[in-house]
Amino acid sequence: MKNIRNILNSRSKIDGNFFVSIQNILGFKPKNIAYFKKAFTHRSMNIKDAEGHPINYERLEFLGDAMLGSVIASHLYTESPSGDEGYLTKMRSKIVSREHLNELGKDLHLINLVESKIPKGHFGDNIYGNLFEALVGAIFLDRGYKYCEKFIYKKVIIPYVDIAQLEGKVISYKSLLIEWCQKEKKVFDYNVYEDTGNDEIRHFSVKLSIDNKVVSKARATSKKKAEEKASKRAFFVFQNQISKDNPSL
Amino acid sequence: MKNIRNILNSRSKIDGNFFVSIQNILGFKPKNIAYFKKAFTHRSMNIKDAEGHPINYERLEFLGDAMLGSVIASHLYTESPSGDEGYLTKMRSKIVSREHLNELGKDLHLINLVESKIPKGHFGDNIYGNLFEALVGAIFLDRGYKYCEKFIYKKVIIPYVDIAQLEGKVISYKSLLIEWCQKEKKVFDYNVYEDTGNDEIRHFSVKLSIDNKVVSKARATSKKKAEEKASKRAFFVFQNQISKDNPSL
Repeated sequence: MKNIRNILNSRSKIDGNFFVSIQNILGFKPKNIAYFKKAFTHRSMNIKDAEGHPINYERLEFLGDAMLGSVIASHLYTESPSGDEGYLTKMRSKIVSREHLNELGKDLHLINLVESKIPKGHFGDNIYGNLFEALVGAIFLDRGYKYCEKFIYKKVIIPYVDIAQLEGKVISYKSLLIEWCQKEKKVFDYNVYEDTGNDEIRHFSVKLSIDNKVVSKARATSKKKAEEKASKRAFFVFQNQISKDNPSL
Repeated sequence: MKNIRNILNSRSKIDGNFFVSIQNILGFKPKNIAYFKKAFTHRSMNIKDAEGHPINYERLEFLGDAMLGSVIASHLYTESPSGDEGYLTKMRSKIVSREHLNELGKDLHLINLVESKIPKGHFGDNIYGNLFEALVGAIFLDRGYKYCEKFIYKKVIIPYVDIAQLEGKVISYKSLLIEWCQKEKKVFDYNVYEDTGNDEIRHFSVKLSIDNKVVSKARATSKKKAEEKASKRAFFVFQNQISKDNPSL
């Protein structure tokens, strides 16, 4: 009896952790945690519902992909009033590219939440993007379009969607920043160090200083990405001054 | 002075007609008629806004296509709990096929509302589907996702989305109905007549009688389509009786 109680307790502790992790990622309380459980269940678990339908995240990917498509479409429509249909389609496919979705899933450490019979190290890169899509699908079922839209703004559009960069006007914020520092005779320093912490994947952190003052910090899965992220953040700090020298921005 | 007043009056009468026509199609009052004006302005009008951006329906098509995609995705996700990702994708592409969208646009007579310098007879079939997509995009901008979803349910999903037919289980409701009538020794009659009315395109109407009683009516752009539509309606009237003989339905 005591044993069963212990098992149940530890089970509900695991479920409690899952709930908290999901809440932290979402920024709000899930109403029906079952949608999110499904979004992180791999087919290898071989679970079925009462009607015999498999419970795993694959169908949620389809739903999440559609929601991402429409939220990004509506953002581009508003933000790019001069872009024609072909341009809007091209921009959207850049934003929801497999590579980009994988990066988003990695940044949110979604793989830590997966239930699977396959060891996590055996998955390819695509699992990150698939989990991200499934998570968006679960948000839609749990809370509807508005919450889904908010989540995509917070996690995709605000941090990553930069129309200037997508258009290829800005290839690298790092080179833009270095160029500006050199021109303005400012001393810059990228202090990069390994910072994997509890993550399963290697991570790097960077502190970017200009004239011996830290102006931005970033963390990512490669040195190059961390530097670019920090540069972009610094760019927005000095945007007005940098733009004076680059009227096309 | 009187002339100008007459012109303005007749102009506002035209605008008033447009408003009423849109309201009839939507089933609700548009908040900002400008979105709908845009959805029915062809590029040949060569109109630009204050910033020099062209005003026509092409960008709205992109938006409407994305909204159709996500509403249909969420419908299929719920309605087809056993369908996997590949199946859901295939079903969606059947529903939002160019051919199907053209049919929807034709049924709503959307071409009657177009402003264009090109004579309406010179457009190909795709203008119907394009206008339908643009209309959905305008609804999204005017009223948001919920109204967009309602409109798509009313005009696309309820009247046209029949998973049994899409899956190919039912190829033709006409043959299904005739088979059933023959088996049950019922007399059926398809009374088809041309019924173009004020439309620019030829239309046909059909009255379907079973045992000398009209059971359904339909109207479409070909005899075959009108008969199929009437058969489908009759099928739903007799569904319980027909299903007894066809346990797979």
